[in-house]
Amino acid sequence: MSDPCFLAVDWGTTNLRAWVVGRDGAALDGRDFPLGVSRLQPGEAPRRFAETVRPALKAERLPALMCGMVGSNLGWREVPYLDCPADLRALAANLCRLAGEDPPTMIVPGLRARRADGTPDVMRGEEVQVLGWAAGKPERRRGRRLVCHPGTHAKWVRVVEGRVDHFVTAMTGELFDLLCKYSVLQVRESPDDPDAFDEGLEAAGDGAALAARLFTARARVVGGDMPAERVRPYLSGLLIGAEVAATPALVGAEAGEPVALIGDLRLCGLYRRALEARGIAASVHDGDEAVLVGLKALFETEFVS
Amino acid sequence: MSDPCFLAVDWGTTNLRAWVVGRDGAALDGRDFPLGVSRLQPGEAPRRFAETVRPALKAERLPALMCGMVGSNLGWREVPYLDCPADLRALAANLCRLAGEDPPTMIVPGLRARRADGTPDVMRGEEVQVLGWAAGKPERRRGRRLVCHPGTHAKWVRVVEGRVDHFVTAMTGELFDLLCKYSVLQVRESPDDPDAFDEGLEAAGDGAALAARLFTARARVVGGDMPAERVRPYLSGLLIGAEVAATPALVGAEAGEPVALIGDLRLCGLYRRALEARGIAASVHDGDEAVLVGLKALFETEFVS
Repeated sequence: MSDPCFLAVDWGTTNLRAWVVGRDGAALDGRDFPLGVSRLQPGEAPRRFAETVRPALKAERLPALMCGMVGSNLGWREVPYLDCPADLRALAANLCRLAGEDPPTMIVPGLRARRADGTPDVMRGEEVQVLGWAAGKPERRRGRRLVCHPGTHAKWVRVVEGRVDHFVTAMTGELFDLLCKYSVLQVRESPDDPDAFDEGLEAAGDGAALAARLFTARARVVGGDMPAERVRPYLSGLLIGAEVAATPALVGAEAGEPVALIGDLRLCGLYRRALEARGIAASVHDGDEAVLVGLKALFETEFVS
Repeated sequence: MSDPCFLAVDWGTTNLRAWVVGRDGAALDGRDFPLGVSRLQPGEAPRRFAETVRPALKAERLPALMCGMVGSNLGWREVPYLDCPADLRALAANLCRLAGEDPPTMIVPGLRARRADGTPDVMRGEEVQVLGWAAGKPERRRGRRLVCHPGTHAKWVRVVEGRVDHFVTAMTGELFDLLCKYSVLQVRESPDDPDAFDEGLEAAGDGAALAARLFTARARVVGGDMPAERVRPYLSGLLIGAEVAATPALVGAEAGEPVALIGDLRLCGLYRRALEARGIAASVHDGDEAVLVGLKALFETEFVS
């Protein structure tokens, strides 16, 4: 086992995930904390990091490299977005070193892109996963790649020669949560149900008229065509199906272009099912592994070069 | 002024609207009550109707004809849906007379239709407005008409020879409410802003990839392109724009087919603006007038024939 080298932190909206990383890049220890920035009081981040995160991992003496919403106005300190296209080198050149922190503690900037119609889009955290994924294998840095990072705010990313060229965010996961919690659809907790998920995929059609397609989740129950406990997987299939039907075109995807899915493995599996139902090949890549590769590469660029 | 003839009631999810109707069909008096079925305890409807609604309109001795969610499992009594195609005569033949009520009190059944893909759809209340609108002028009962009733659950209705042939529900209004109240978009109360509404219309594009287009309401603010107080009208334009772009096709609309908008006049105005931005002619018709014409026609069929 190699010596501890630095503390890698993916600090998101809901959770904080931290790993002690060895010299060989492997995680020696890792922990999740319910300390996402949405759960923090203003100004609370430094104290919770010093008093909770570092001690739990015995990492009081390690430099730390953090990505995600920790760099937003809800986090530790707002770090300006870097404009696309951007690669790991550009991120490394724009790390924000937090004054007064010893050992050194740094935040990775997020990325900003323009959609084809000029609308801005932003991400914080996914850029390290995407670029970490690309850093993992030389062939991923050749030519144009289409990457999807599913989640509360899914990211569809065009990677060109190992750079994030541009991207589009789809708030599919958030819509799913809002509809489950608050809508007329009366969504219940229910077991996985691939058949109901597939029915939702089919109901998504070409992805247009989403508000009309969503109501089928209600009308099928009221009309007696579907038991209420199938609404949740059906709705999941409908929303993911609508997303994969129409969003890739917004990042210039060709028809049938394969997709690399990076992130939570269960969620990536649902997206793969949705893509394959449309005849699109998809590969699944663990988001934790990707963020570790990315942060390790950034750490080395900053500290070893 | 003619003698009071019957009590017309549009009893919805949120509100109850009631009118005393004269022999000539004109409303002699009308009132709104915050007694929508979602606000009632189970079994409470008859008592509130007798103790609050009838006395407020001095209508203790009038027969009553009610439409809307009062006929759902949340209302007074569940009245089975009538299958499309259906006209006023079919509704009249299937009124549900409530046992033990004196003066006579009746509920209009809702309608059920099948979408082109076989999915069921349902409505309760809008059918009386649509058929009342069609009853108002002979030319509206000739040939095929495309009607839209905007609202929490907007209805797109294909009217053929004065019958409701089939329809599709789009839960656009509910999505707007959920996103305003609970989402990351941080929507604030704000004054009308036609320019921001129009920007939303434009951002709706062809109506596909809605979850991705919705995120522009956040990214434009975070990216510095839009002040936060414009989010609400922008979001309204985006959702309505996406609905009018893609939903008419689900009821077999031809490209550019004119739309008759029936309902709340302010909301109809927003839909007209959205349709006209796409080069589609739209006429606006008051929903209260339409429901009164419809209920009057049903009352006469039942009591005068």
